[in-house]
Amino acid sequence: MEQDAFKGRSTVITGGLGFIGSNLAHRLVGLGAKVVLIDNLFPNHGSNRANIRGIEDRVDLHILDMRDSEALRGLLDGVEFVFNLAGQTSHLDSMHDPVTDLEMNVSAQLVLLEGCRGRCPGARIVYASTRQIYGRPQYLPVDERHLLRPVDVNGVNKMAGEAHHIVYNDVYGLRSTALRLTNTYGPRMRVRDARQTFLGLWIRKALEGEPYEVWGGAQLRDLAYVDDVVDALMHAALCPDLDGAPFNVSGSPALSLLELAQMLERATGQGFAIREFPEERKRIDIGDYYADDSRFRELTGWAPQVSLQEGLERTLAYFRDHLSDYV
Amino acid sequence: MEQDAFKGRSTVITGGLGFIGSNLAHRLVGLGAKVVLIDNLFPNHGSNRANIRGIEDRVDLHILDMRDSEALRGLLDGVEFVFNLAGQTSHLDSMHDPVTDLEMNVSAQLVLLEGCRGRCPGARIVYASTRQIYGRPQYLPVDERHLLRPVDVNGVNKMAGEAHHIVYNDVYGLRSTALRLTNTYGPRMRVRDARQTFLGLWIRKALEGEPYEVWGGAQLRDLAYVDDVVDALMHAALCPDLDGAPFNVSGSPALSLLELAQMLERATGQGFAIREFPEERKRIDIGDYYADDSRFRELTGWAPQVSLQEGLERTLAYFRDHLSDYV
Repeated sequence: MEQDAFKGRSTVITGGLGFIGSNLAHRLVGLGAKVVLIDNLFPNHGSNRANIRGIEDRVDLHILDMRDSEALRGLLDGVEFVFNLAGQTSHLDSMHDPVTDLEMNVSAQLVLLEGCRGRCPGARIVYASTRQIYGRPQYLPVDERHLLRPVDVNGVNKMAGEAHHIVYNDVYGLRSTALRLTNTYGPRMRVRDARQTFLGLWIRKALEGEPYEVWGGAQLRDLAYVDDVVDALMHAALCPDLDGAPFNVSGSPALSLLELAQMLERATGQGFAIREFPEERKRIDIGDYYADDSRFRELTGWAPQVSLQEGLERTLAYFRDHLSDYV
Repeated sequence: MEQDAFKGRSTVITGGLGFIGSNLAHRLVGLGAKVVLIDNLFPNHGSNRANIRGIEDRVDLHILDMRDSEALRGLLDGVEFVFNLAGQTSHLDSMHDPVTDLEMNVSAQLVLLEGCRGRCPGARIVYASTRQIYGRPQYLPVDERHLLRPVDVNGVNKMAGEAHHIVYNDVYGLRSTALRLTNTYGPRMRVRDARQTFLGLWIRKALEGEPYEVWGGAQLRDLAYVDDVVDALMHAALCPDLDGAPFNVSGSPALSLLELAQMLERATGQGFAIREFPEERKRIDIGDYYADDSRFRELTGWAPQVSLQEGLERTLAYFRDHLSDYV
């Protein structure tokens, strides 16, 4: 990836105060991009003002609800890259309030796409989709030919949000692509609870000296370190061959949740407890998952650079210094 | 199918003044069911008060917007069958106003599913999905293993509406299934314009003595006569083995639009004009489509009974008598 590619370029990040969005903002600011952050700062989402500490003066932050189409449109004139990372991520919240999840993950996306169509039709749009939309894998590793059968309301809505990006690419010539991300972890993740990922809560508990709960333990997962995901988003934005298609993006080789918990124990000295899966969670769990992301690697040249061991250590180092901003 | 199965049973039909909904209402009233019709009577949808002429006094009609959850819930107590046929069907309208299409085809469906969960959790729910969600077929005939890649906003939203029905089945034990219907035609269809299907507009023009326009002409389609679709919905409601799965429902053997236009010409004496595909339509056209519905046939015993020739004649006979109610 050409390091100057983003220098001076007009870039919007939705969900810019969130976990992945803010890490991307740090990277793009460092590369000299002009960065607009859009975020609704909803308390149960991943947003946190502490996430942009150090770059506050070099980003243009707008707190707004993307469903507000007038305000949103005004920020899109002449934009060259849109990293669309805003979304509600909690599976359980989506079951308790499905219509709000729909508004966050689909209505707001349609407002954004309409805005791009009107104001920056030449922009490159990269949408953060999720492995969740596959549901329970019918084979492993999961490639992009796998049927989509999401197991919860959030998964259905994310599937629809992704599909709208593809439709706008194909029908209107917006240059849009979607990355189906796997569990992502790293500095600036939400650790207050498991709304973003179970691993956030584990890390918090481990650093607070409390046993973290491992539900089940046998499930296989691949994990992606956030810097690698940021790289993938940037590769996707620059690669001319991706428009209109969704791509898996994986990370580390798959391991069981038990193995992951043991790694965290070795790194922190804090032990964990194995628990039966709670009933409410079990019904929307997907079992084993790991992705085949070879198509994306071949087309873009991207590959993850940070091992799980290294990524965990960096994450722990960050939260040892900043935990009070996140709890 | 046991003819007494619906006698005295409490049944709700959403979109009950629409094309398929009203035909189902006529059938169920004839079988002695207690039938509640819910319809929003939006002018660009398929609703028409003339559709229930003859059974007005034997159905319980409620004009309401399904997004109004309070009103909707009050109609669901103790209901045994929910035929969920309400929806916005126009592909072009969905492109011009994507958020309204989302509200009609997804938000309203979530409100209904939440209502069923609270008020009639044991009801059997049959959702009218559509072949549109497959997008451009990658192989023919299309079976249920075919990937979903809708080509327009309406297709994305219908895909999401279907998927929510499956999630509510799997997570909450609602007994819900979805039928992916192909182009359906017959008495009480919308003929004012092509918002429901191109064939409606052809029939209107043919009966008014004007040439109808055939765009392209080579595209293959299967068509389903509405009485057969009504049969399929009823079979789905009674079959214990379908919960949580989507099924294709086809009809006649595939034929080209040109062949269909020629059949209509023979039946009415009115000729047609072949036109190039308009650009706005071309971008959301799916090419050839016909379905493999053998899974549904095997599980339910359903099979279409009405040939295309016979169905067209019955449709023309109906609209010769009632055209003024529909234009």
